[in-house]
Amino acid sequence: MNNISKLKAGDSVDTFYLIKRSQQGVTSQGKPYMTLFLQDRTGDIEAKLWTVSKEDMEVLKPETLIKVKGDIIDYRNKKQMKIATFRLATEEDGLNPKDFVEKAPIDENTLYESIMDYVIKIENGSLQRIVRQMLKKYGKEFLSYPAAMSNHHDFVSGLAYHVHYMLRTAEALCDIYPSLNRSLLYSSIILHDIGKVKELSGPVGTTYTTEGNLIGHIVIASEEISKVTAELNIEGEEVLLLKHMILSHHGKLEYGSPKQPMLKEAEILHFIDNIDARMMMMDKHIDKAEKGQFTERIFPLESRFFYRPEHLE
Amino acid sequence: MNNISKLKAGDSVDTFYLIKRSQQGVTSQGKPYMTLFLQDRTGDIEAKLWTVSKEDMEVLKPETLIKVKGDIIDYRNKKQMKIATFRLATEEDGLNPKDFVEKAPIDENTLYESIMDYVIKIENGSLQRIVRQMLKKYGKEFLSYPAAMSNHHDFVSGLAYHVHYMLRTAEALCDIYPSLNRSLLYSSIILHDIGKVKELSGPVGTTYTTEGNLIGHIVIASEEISKVTAELNIEGEEVLLLKHMILSHHGKLEYGSPKQPMLKEAEILHFIDNIDARMMMMDKHIDKAEKGQFTERIFPLESRFFYRPEHLE
Amino acid sequence: MNNISKLKAGDSVDTFYLIKRSQQGVTSQGKPYMTLFLQDRTGDIEAKLWTVSKEDMEVLKPETLIKVKGDIIDYRNKKQMKIATFRLATEEDGLNPKDFVEKAPIDENTLYESIMDYVIKIENGSLQRIVRQMLKKYGKEFLSYPAAMSNHHDFVSGLAYHVHYMLRTAEALCDIYPSLNRSLLYSSIILHDIGKVKELSGPVGTTYTTEGNLIGHIVIASEEISKVTAELNIEGEEVLLLKHMILSHHGKLEYGSPKQPMLKEAEILHFIDNIDARMMMMDKHIDKAEKGQFTERIFPLESRFFYRPEHLE
Amino acid sequence: MNNISKLKAGDSVDTFYLIKRSQQGVTSQGKPYMTLFLQDRTGDIEAKLWTVSKEDMEVLKPETLIKVKGDIIDYRNKKQMKIATFRLATEEDGLNPKDFVEKAPIDENTLYESIMDYVIKIENGSLQRIVRQMLKKYGKEFLSYPAAMSNHHDFVSGLAYHVHYMLRTAEALCDIYPSLNRSLLYSSIILHDIGKVKELSGPVGTTYTTEGNLIGHIVIASEEISKVTAELNIEGEEVLLLKHMILSHHGKLEYGSPKQPMLKEAEILHFIDNIDARMMMMDKHIDKAEKGQFTERIFPLESRFFYRPEHLE
Amino acid sequence: MNNISKLKAGDSVDTFYLIKRSQQGVTSQGKPYMTLFLQDRTGDIEAKLWTVSKEDMEVLKPETLIKVKGDIIDYRNKKQMKIATFRLATEEDGLNPKDFVEKAPIDENTLYESIMDYVIKIENGSLQRIVRQMLKKYGKEFLSYPAAMSNHHDFVSGLAYHVHYMLRTAEALCDIYPSLNRSLLYSSIILHDIGKVKELSGPVGTTYTTEGNLIGHIVIASEEISKVTAELNIEGEEVLLLKHMILSHHGKLEYGSPKQPMLKEAEILHFIDNIDARMMMMDKHIDKAEKGQFTERIFPLESRFFYRPEHLE
Amino acid sequence: MNNISKLKAGDSVDTFYLIKRSQQGVTSQGKPYMTLFLQDRTGDIEAKLWTVSKEDMEVLKPETLIKVKGDIIDYRNKKQMKIATFRLATEEDGLNPKDFVEKAPIDENTLYESIMDYVIKIENGSLQRIVRQMLKKYGKEFLSYPAAMSNHHDFVSGLAYHVHYMLRTAEALCDIYPSLNRSLLYSSIILHDIGKVKELSGPVGTTYTTEGNLIGHIVIASEEISKVTAELNIEGEEVLLLKHMILSHHGKLEYGSPKQPMLKEAEILHFIDNIDARMMMMDKHIDKAEKGQFTERIFPLESRFFYRPEHLE
Repeated sequence: MNNISKLKAGDSVDTFYLIKRSQQGVTSQGKPYMTLFLQDRTGDIEAKLWTVSKEDMEVLKPETLIKVKGDIIDYRNKKQMKIATFRLATEEDGLNPKDFVEKAPIDENTLYESIMDYVIKIENGSLQRIVRQMLKKYGKEFLSYPAAMSNHHDFVSGLAYHVHYMLRTAEALCDIYPSLNRSLLYSSIILHDIGKVKELSGPVGTTYTTEGNLIGHIVIASEEISKVTAELNIEGEEVLLLKHMILSHHGKLEYGSPKQPMLKEAEILHFIDNIDARMMMMDKHIDKAEKGQFTERIFPLESRFFYRPEHLE
Repeated sequence: MNNISKLKAGDSVDTFYLIKRSQQGVTSQGKPYMTLFLQDRTGDIEAKLWTVSKEDMEVLKPETLIKVKGDIIDYRNKKQMKIATFRLATEEDGLNPKDFVEKAPIDENTLYESIMDYVIKIENGSLQRIVRQMLKKYGKEFLSYPAAMSNHHDFVSGLAYHVHYMLRTAEALCDIYPSLNRSLLYSSIILHDIGKVKELSGPVGTTYTTEGNLIGHIVIASEEISKVTAELNIEGEEVLLLKHMILSHHGKLEYGSPKQPMLKEAEILHFIDNIDARMMMMDKHIDKAEKGQFTERIFPLESRFFYRPEHLE
Repeated sequence: MNNISKLKAGDSVDTFYLIKRSQQGVTSQGKPYMTLFLQDRTGDIEAKLWTVSKEDMEVLKPETLIKVKGDIIDYRNKKQMKIATFRLATEEDGLNPKDFVEKAPIDENTLYESIMDYVIKIENGSLQRIVRQMLKKYGKEFLSYPAAMSNHHDFVSGLAYHVHYMLRTAEALCDIYPSLNRSLLYSSIILHDIGKVKELSGPVGTTYTTEGNLIGHIVIASEEISKVTAELNIEGEEVLLLKHMILSHHGKLEYGSPKQPMLKEAEILHFIDNIDARMMMMDKHIDKAEKGQFTERIFPLESRFFYRPEHLE
Repeated sequence: MNNISKLKAGDSVDTFYLIKRSQQGVTSQGKPYMTLFLQDRTGDIEAKLWTVSKEDMEVLKPETLIKVKGDIIDYRNKKQMKIATFRLATEEDGLNPKDFVEKAPIDENTLYESIMDYVIKIENGSLQRIVRQMLKKYGKEFLSYPAAMSNHHDFVSGLAYHVHYMLRTAEALCDIYPSLNRSLLYSSIILHDIGKVKELSGPVGTTYTTEGNLIGHIVIASEEISKVTAELNIEGEEVLLLKHMILSHHGKLEYGSPKQPMLKEAEILHFIDNIDARMMMMDKHIDKAEKGQFTERIFPLESRFFYRPEHLE
Repeated sequence: MNNISKLKAGDSVDTFYLIKRSQQGVTSQGKPYMTLFLQDRTGDIEAKLWTVSKEDMEVLKPETLIKVKGDIIDYRNKKQMKIATFRLATEEDGLNPKDFVEKAPIDENTLYESIMDYVIKIENGSLQRIVRQMLKKYGKEFLSYPAAMSNHHDFVSGLAYHVHYMLRTAEALCDIYPSLNRSLLYSSIILHDIGKVKELSGPVGTTYTTEGNLIGHIVIASEEISKVTAELNIEGEEVLLLKHMILSHHGKLEYGSPKQPMLKEAEILHFIDNIDARMMMMDKHIDKAEKGQFTERIFPLESRFFYRPEHLE
Repeated sequence: MNNISKLKAGDSVDTFYLIKRSQQGVTSQGKPYMTLFLQDRTGDIEAKLWTVSKEDMEVLKPETLIKVKGDIIDYRNKKQMKIATFRLATEEDGLNPKDFVEKAPIDENTLYESIMDYVIKIENGSLQRIVRQMLKKYGKEFLSYPAAMSNHHDFVSGLAYHVHYMLRTAEALCDIYPSLNRSLLYSSIILHDIGKVKELSGPVGTTYTTEGNLIGHIVIASEEISKVTAELNIEGEEVLLLKHMILSHHGKLEYGSPKQPMLKEAEILHFIDNIDARMMMMDKHIDKAEKGQFTERIFPLESRFFYRPEHLE
């Protein structure tokens, strides 16, 4: 109980939360106060601590666990928490910050096994070896990182969860359209966003790294593949094809791909990526709407709003 | 042998072909000649008849079968046939014009059965009844019409062939993403392009009808659904949803949809439609390219060219 | 006096207003308050009630008439009303909510007669019968609905007022350019926005209906014409032309028309519609500006600002 | 008879025409020939003279009248004339080149009187004086120049004919929308394209001048108004307003206006200009189409094709 | 000390500032307060005076010098000044408002001499005479005006400072690419923005004039050149070329140039203008960022953010 | 004499040329012929050989030197050569194909020395070492390759010639704007297009390689820098910065850069690249125009045409 996603105006809380971000402020009367963004694994909420000591300011840092007493109010149509008192969590509380962040609905191990099942199906030897070596080098991050900063799959293990779903769609499409090369499609799906493990800072409190901003995950991934093929002494057309798949997977130049898809499988990779990201976003927003009502406008879905049918199950 | 798709400069022919289009011309020296576009089920070719009588002009009409002697030359990088002599096909030749047009690789009956297997899986009773009634009214045209004038599925039964493939992908996606409503998605796939049976003139020698130009298949289909629901006394939210699926299936206003997708299933319908059309176009052009070479620029694929890998099977 | 459009910071009020919308809030100190949007026929204003009982919250609903004592203040460059006390209007006050909403400057009956004068001038019998039947079915709503949710003609009888002005311009253009077909142009002007009577919820407190969002007034109107022609057993080219006029009247695909204008009269309909909407918006904003000054940026006029000349009358 | 617009393949001619343009060529066999574009007041046609002497080449210059014997053929779906023999027109033939170019359907004098009737209605004294002085300086060219190089009103007196129609529409709109300032609208319509008299080379054989290319008729007109107001010692806001009307009359920056319309009258001027140009283009192309058929795609009308109704008069 | 650009939350001030703008407000409790934007030559800051008399309201007008006691607080991530007390500056304080506005880093006289050195290098006599006459007429404003309202060079003498830098780049490019005409490039750089002296209201408290809004500095400058050439009896191609340089210097129609560059020098003028404006904006924002960090998104630089390297000097 | 750029209709030739491309054709009468594109170092021309033997077809291959007798004719406003007879060049003719292709106006050695002078000025040690190593690996191709397939610098040594000019402009801008980092700008200019040595097939008969099409010179160059820094054990921020400079040098995503410029130097690199490419294109086309005339529309310069002044030197 007291899950953040369930809180509503009028509720009182006396619960542990993790500090996601914190900001100091001064009221118009000149008194200091603090704004904390508190989270648990169901969501996050803005909280205000109106009376604050110098010492408070020092300990209320991001990724700190605190126990909070307070009330939920409605401020400009958004929920806000007014903190009455708080204390830092101690070792005796026996809590782990990792239990306070959102995670993929499937656990890491299951995702890993599912993905490895597809690795086995990569019949082209060079491509399978490249994928295995990449997962050997970056598997840990691959399994814990989110797939994006926001919008979709922005949670722990979001990247692997996204890949897992994409592989399932790819398998179906290869069955329906046998002219698609399964090895090329599976290997590029597994590696398409692996550059994110260098573009993003980590699974929690995620920000862009300097390398992420200046180079970007698309070029990072392409270079990592080059390094791995050099390490493994792999040569041949499939290396070029795999790199093209990665480079073109945003589908259009204006979306940051330096090349448009020029392979059938590259075109399809872009569609599979898009379908999974959009299903995730649509489900997330439509689930929040009432039946027979529309969602808010969703910015990454071209600012459209979506309808949740009333009678259709 | 002598299939049009296989002809090359230097070949001679002595074969039956169907006239697709014909034009009269006059050379700069003032002499009449005729340009014929001849076809068989593998493709079409431009042919010139440099010496032509008044009588010839009258009989060389579209959809006429003729037996032609002539040679294939290379004119400005395109193959052209120079007709030496010709005669009209007679009843004794025992030929049917229908055997000289391109057809879907799967025959009508098989397509019909495949599609009916999906109709059964439409669990929503109203939607299933609407689909059955529409197929009852327009089933014959639905099974013989192309899906488009050009670019993709522009052959006899192209529409049903397109629907057949889309249904298979839809089934796979509903398995992977169970939040999708199967009834809504299947019924809208079957009906999404059914307005083409009024937009286009027919399966052979296809042109746009006046109604097709002025109203368009999207609005035509939406209205036909309204008529059928009136006939069947069906009311309820699903009628609105089904019509929205049809109206929004081009995905964007600038592609001719009067509404953008506002249903999860509408968004996915647009993707499935796109994937099948693009697979068809990519396969068609890539098959024509040599291994290790690029295709020509393909206009409906954003004028990109595609690569046919050399070593990848 | 005390018309909302005339209020300025520093004024006190003791007047009846209609509640247009209401929202509950909680101050950062945790106390409840209410925001009301009050209107009379000259405009609307945001009002704050800082001290509020449970009972107050229940009675302060949209479309309720209240008598308010309060002061006008300037809050972030916008006028706001601070409500001191209020009471509900009673039967003895003898007031009608309909007198507190904005209306077209010409009354319904006059608009109806003016439009019927043009109906008589539709010489094409089929078109005149279609228009008469449509007005018979939807005339009541046609005369009271606004032409839009916001921007222009967003008041009671706005739709008929808009049509009335468009007909006058159409008549002038048909005199100047005799090649225009008067029957087609008049009938399509009268019906061009009639789908709004289903797209919008009503003349007061107007919102979009679900059908409005999912289908849209353009397709709704086209289908209604089809129904009427079926009812009247009317066939012929003019039905197709009339429907094309409706479908294309937004002028471009990206504005929501599924077809671009392909008739001379369709092109001109789009211009006449645009001129009347823009005159309305320009007059509304320019009238509010001081002489020799510019208006604010007007979003639906491509975010331009307009100049009100100083000396020109 | 033998009017160019009426010629069809198979016709023979023995008639006088005016040379509009001429080009020399050499056949692939190395023999010289000439291409002439011949015109009369109904249109123009490409003509070939396959045998040509040095002397012929010297006399067959633009704006020369010749009598031609020849035949009309169909070359790549366009009519072409094959010249057998020709001779230069002589004084005895009593012909005037001016009778061989297309002209406005209303003669110069009538147009002048019609426009002067509107000048009188310009109640603002400064604006009327500016218009009179501009017409005094450039009236002759104003009455003979085309309104454009191609597309619409590209004939002798096209500019005045265009202005004449625009004034009639303006008058109607000022009656319907009395908030429009009649003086400003009439004066700016008369002067909006007067810069064309310097942008274009003349009424016949029209090309762009260097000044036209580098400065453009919009800025040229604005400067001419400044000169005239200096000559007449006119000052005041209306000069600024009139210049803004001219500068903004293309409606958008990307159409070459350095300012978007910021006056109500400027917005309306742009619409009136557009309506008249589009009516001219639509009529021209639709008149050429068969009833029940579509025109070719018309480039300046967003490459749309238009429908000519079958039964509607 | 107490320079506005150096102030940070927690500081106290007791210093003279210039009022840039002032606004009256009323708190939600109905009490009046004032918002002042105070400036010195290093920047500006928002200040609040929470207790305010009628008399205060009358004297706290823009361009007034006041001595302020107060504190700096952090309000929503921006610095704000809370004014405790203030007094008006008196003559005895011996202060000049001109010393409280931002100025170019090079003084007027030096800028003037630098620019005159380039005037001498204009070898084409007509162009040099035009430039000299323009500077004679508008030199005073030219030396004090900003180059823009905001974004770049928005300070006293910004226009001349901008021209000074552009001339230096032009000189370098003429050395590297000798086919560029030095006379044309120098003269057009000096005059390219001279219309700003009429488009903008002045060097301090700068706003757009009505003429600026309705005509714009591009057309204003072109007309002024025409006037000067008339005064000096200068004729010839170079006048046309110079005017074209001015008219096209925004590079594209959609940026407000009525003509795109059609001269080599016009194309280069646009690039030089762009480079100087962008260097100014990049330096300004990057200087404010920490080393190893990114700037905020900069709107006029396509909303990009920029990186300030950590180790590179 | 007989330089291709100087040939005009009516000329006869009896000269050596290099075959650039060749095509076989068949006339409408069924006879074979050949189209050759012949070049010397001043340009190229289309040539027709109307009578052709089987043997001729085998020897007339690209990069073959032949001696041609023939005439120049004017065919559809373009010059064409009609070949009467030809013979292959023999060893005795003592000719080298390399003397028949266009080259940079400055020879390789001079370009190399000029560029090395700038390498020395790269004060940052890491950047200088990277540049030296890259030139060591790819210097030979760097000095002989063109900078592009067409449009600009499409000749032998075009790449080095382009870099040479860019470095000169960069030096001037670093003098004028001292906040620019000279080491970063010089090193990235030298390397910005070095990926072209793998993207393009070579200095003569240049086509895109498969790697060029699928990966592109931008990503190729970035990876090569990574390899070189690994070889040299160079680490540090400057490697990231240099790679960002390469990746962003096309300036916008839609021009194929996977990142927009985020460094001041990256923004300026894009401008310098643009200026040099545009100067080259403008000079090439304007030189071909007559004085006082306009060029044709130039596609890569936004399809504008340019004016060549009449009197300005």
